[in-house]
Amino acid sequence: MDKNQTAVLLMHCEDQRGILAEVTDFIMGNQGNIINLDQHVDSDDNRFYMRIEWELEHFIIPQNKIAEYFETMIVSKFNAIHELHFLPKKINIALFVSQYSHCLLDILSRHESKEWKVNIKCIISNHEKFRGISEKFGIPFHYFPVKKANKTELEAKELALLKEHKVELIILARYMQILSDDFCSNYPNQIINIHHSSLPAFPGARPYESAHRRGVKFMGATAHYVTTDLDEGPIIAQDVIHISHRDSIYDMKRKGRNIEKIVLANACWAHLNHQVLSYNNKTVVFD
Amino acid sequence: MDKNQTAVLLMHCEDQRGILAEVTDFIMGNQGNIINLDQHVDSDDNRFYMRIEWELEHFIIPQNKIAEYFETMIVSKFNAIHELHFLPKKINIALFVSQYSHCLLDILSRHESKEWKVNIKCIISNHEKFRGISEKFGIPFHYFPVKKANKTELEAKELALLKEHKVELIILARYMQILSDDFCSNYPNQIINIHHSSLPAFPGARPYESAHRRGVKFMGATAHYVTTDLDEGPIIAQDVIHISHRDSIYDMKRKGRNIEKIVLANACWAHLNHQVLSYNNKTVVFD
Amino acid sequence: MDKNQTAVLLMHCEDQRGILAEVTDFIMGNQGNIINLDQHVDSDDNRFYMRIEWELEHFIIPQNKIAEYFETMIVSKFNAIHELHFLPKKINIALFVSQYSHCLLDILSRHESKEWKVNIKCIISNHEKFRGISEKFGIPFHYFPVKKANKTELEAKELALLKEHKVELIILARYMQILSDDFCSNYPNQIINIHHSSLPAFPGARPYESAHRRGVKFMGATAHYVTTDLDEGPIIAQDVIHISHRDSIYDMKRKGRNIEKIVLANACWAHLNHQVLSYNNKTVVFD
Amino acid sequence: MDKNQTAVLLMHCEDQRGILAEVTDFIMGNQGNIINLDQHVDSDDNRFYMRIEWELEHFIIPQNKIAEYFETMIVSKFNAIHELHFLPKKINIALFVSQYSHCLLDILSRHESKEWKVNIKCIISNHEKFRGISEKFGIPFHYFPVKKANKTELEAKELALLKEHKVELIILARYMQILSDDFCSNYPNQIINIHHSSLPAFPGARPYESAHRRGVKFMGATAHYVTTDLDEGPIIAQDVIHISHRDSIYDMKRKGRNIEKIVLANACWAHLNHQVLSYNNKTVVFD
Repeated sequence: MDKNQTAVLLMHCEDQRGILAEVTDFIMGNQGNIINLDQHVDSDDNRFYMRIEWELEHFIIPQNKIAEYFETMIVSKFNAIHELHFLPKKINIALFVSQYSHCLLDILSRHESKEWKVNIKCIISNHEKFRGISEKFGIPFHYFPVKKANKTELEAKELALLKEHKVELIILARYMQILSDDFCSNYPNQIINIHHSSLPAFPGARPYESAHRRGVKFMGATAHYVTTDLDEGPIIAQDVIHISHRDSIYDMKRKGRNIEKIVLANACWAHLNHQVLSYNNKTVVFD
Repeated sequence: MDKNQTAVLLMHCEDQRGILAEVTDFIMGNQGNIINLDQHVDSDDNRFYMRIEWELEHFIIPQNKIAEYFETMIVSKFNAIHELHFLPKKINIALFVSQYSHCLLDILSRHESKEWKVNIKCIISNHEKFRGISEKFGIPFHYFPVKKANKTELEAKELALLKEHKVELIILARYMQILSDDFCSNYPNQIINIHHSSLPAFPGARPYESAHRRGVKFMGATAHYVTTDLDEGPIIAQDVIHISHRDSIYDMKRKGRNIEKIVLANACWAHLNHQVLSYNNKTVVFD
Repeated sequence: MDKNQTAVLLMHCEDQRGILAEVTDFIMGNQGNIINLDQHVDSDDNRFYMRIEWELEHFIIPQNKIAEYFETMIVSKFNAIHELHFLPKKINIALFVSQYSHCLLDILSRHESKEWKVNIKCIISNHEKFRGISEKFGIPFHYFPVKKANKTELEAKELALLKEHKVELIILARYMQILSDDFCSNYPNQIINIHHSSLPAFPGARPYESAHRRGVKFMGATAHYVTTDLDEGPIIAQDVIHISHRDSIYDMKRKGRNIEKIVLANACWAHLNHQVLSYNNKTVVFD
Repeated sequence: MDKNQTAVLLMHCEDQRGILAEVTDFIMGNQGNIINLDQHVDSDDNRFYMRIEWELEHFIIPQNKIAEYFETMIVSKFNAIHELHFLPKKINIALFVSQYSHCLLDILSRHESKEWKVNIKCIISNHEKFRGISEKFGIPFHYFPVKKANKTELEAKELALLKEHKVELIILARYMQILSDDFCSNYPNQIINIHHSSLPAFPGARPYESAHRRGVKFMGATAHYVTTDLDEGPIIAQDVIHISHRDSIYDMKRKGRNIEKIVLANACWAHLNHQVLSYNNKTVVFD
């Protein structure tokens, strides 16, 4: 076993006495060295959230038995929702893209420079436009010209491809097609989209034009998990930049691309490091 | 005449050749020394905006004739909308307030420290709560318990008071009553409100609660001119702060107060220095 | 006993196995309900930091014995540095000020509006200028015209006054005198200063002039604990604002005042809520 | 002639009456339609700065004679320093890089997506590391293993290459070699460097380590023209991000890369659009 391997437990449940002590006692009682603990109680929702990471080196319970222990303990006792992950582990990713390249190239760059230690298994697009870029970076490119008429059929093919590649995270890097509810339900909290405005202001298409018309003095970008409600999923990361009357719609789009790609990358980074818990259409991001 | 006195011309009109040259030639041809010129063409709207400030010291045209010249020249020739101001001049202000004191105290502090060189003629409130503070700072306090039934009557009294004091700018420093359309139409682009969210997200009451429920990662404050459309007037200034799951609604309100008072002060400062042009429900702020 | 009373333990020590479990077990074993726990390991310094807050309502150990327990347990076992506080409790504060009123008025406003639940025991100044404001807000004002020659003598009088008022936190709200090392050593981590630049850039006097000369594109404000090294104490809070060539030194000062007062207030708020741990000239701020 | 071609005049000189009128009269008198005018007077330095852009379509003076006219008029009359550019025109660029790829890949992406309409003539490096990336993007790569002993010789070869390619802008995209004074003097205000801190704080190498040690609460990035004073040239763009005790040096570097690449791109964009005037070691950036 890798000396530096760790386990990460993410969990949330109704707030109740003793959860923290129970979990920490269990880990330390089995010789696990806790290296990170972050907890949060949302007193408005009476909900307890925790992320705990410990070294596996001297941990008594064998790695393949840990899940079972927590299953029993946490689910039965606290009625909690939880995830268990082992680090380091390269996550399998698929990128969906349409006609804007800035987010795609930013992610490929982070992969190329080894900032992101992931397997980008494939790039899926409803346009042929970025086949060249994909090949440049050595990633298989798949063209699915999704339209209303063929959506069911093509999404089935996409899903088959994703299953084949054991994809664990789908990144919509400015993908301009709406995924069907069926498709989304296959990857709950595993599809991240970047919306090019500061949701909930300016949902839908053409937010820069709307922002310009309204004369706002800043604009934003929002990365969120995709649910069956368009542009309404839990927000993971947001950022904004100030604009002024000097900024034309063209300038807004140009400046917007900078925050879109950074916000999307930040949200994915948090997800890849198992720092995000989502509940009740909101997220807790332990950074 | 004060050696340092200047004139400020604010104007906007349909974009057309030669406006800039015409105005600068007129001023310089009459020995006015231009010390600030800022212009902007909104190519999406095909609209030309300009702010020009010049020294009156050697200006040939007498101060009381300048308005007439521009009236003739600018209105007739370019079909422009314009304002002419002379600086320095203390502007008469009225503050409207309800039950939150942070914006009120911030403005009184800027007055006390002489950052703002204005005459605060009166404080008007629909509650008695801040009579003490007003008197502490030596400003007359007027209590108008506006309700649906007596709104017409009390607004008439307020208007009379404002006229009597020759008030030129009304600042709604967290005033929780909606002004009637009639009232608003007396002070076009002369009433500034602070809305405690980043409009157009979360208009109306209780924006912090809505923002918390939606799980947004930043929140904002918006200062805007008041029009007959509630929370829909031209935006003058906005700012945002990042928040996280750690922030309760209480924290959001506490942090929100900091940006509310700064954004409101910034918007008023721009207005007081005649830096704001408003057209088509948007502003140009020459800073 | 107040039903809502809580205890806050702040501690830091060399990182070692089992600290977290030991402390949480102790509290929960004595029927204390933990409502907040935040910990941090600085792996670069191998230092463990923790803030833990629990309800006293059913806590078995009497309030006046708690300190003793932790003294024994934490000091002896982990060689930790710690503080123990009980909430809610109004802290006694003294404000030091010279010739700028914006931070002073901002703090007085927060006190007036009850955002800060503190006792402002006195305002101390080396100028008479703000006696009027102090009296307006009903706070005793003390004039100590400190100069090189009389510094030892006057600081002794100031210290006597502070002791008499049982002052626990001194806020230097733009106080332009350097406190002697002797004075500072009486209040370790209990004096907060606001420096009007983004330290470590532009230490010393006249930072705005230096920033303007260097042509920087943003400027900042820094709140820090005062140590015997001028402008070198542990930083609690910082913020910046963007500036451009359009900003004169006058504009920079005007805009700077906005962040100075907010940054100082934020730092004080964190201190008042016992969220700050300071070690090795750095702070951990549990927000 | 391209219908949309414009001329841009950038100039600065001692502030004096009538400059603005003289230049605008000249352009409009020759049927040039001014589409952008931005001017600034630095009253602390008594310096007048202007950027003016006009359409060439009906301009009476032939394009190849314009320079001569301004030479005579502006230099002789106002003792001004000026630049004249024609747009659109693809500028020839060289990228210098060492061992970090984020800025390089960001610029190549902007080129690939046609956000930047430039000719990237070559990539020069003191390491072989990025030959692969360069070739991927079809840009010639040149390896110059500059060391103390061979600096004079290799810089001469670099200069020859740059001259051959008619390079007009050199971007140091995290190039870790100091260029000689001789080299720099060949490209005044034509070499842009990104420094990975908010200058003037933390100049020199390893700024993230210094920032971490000092415990600052934000960190920045600075893009500046390279002069013979290391890290002391005129600042074009800066940005900062907030950090906390939770950020390790690794996190700071990771987050820092995001602002480094954006700040560098913003500075280059302003330069490419002829929006930057530099004087007295400061810049005016007309945005």
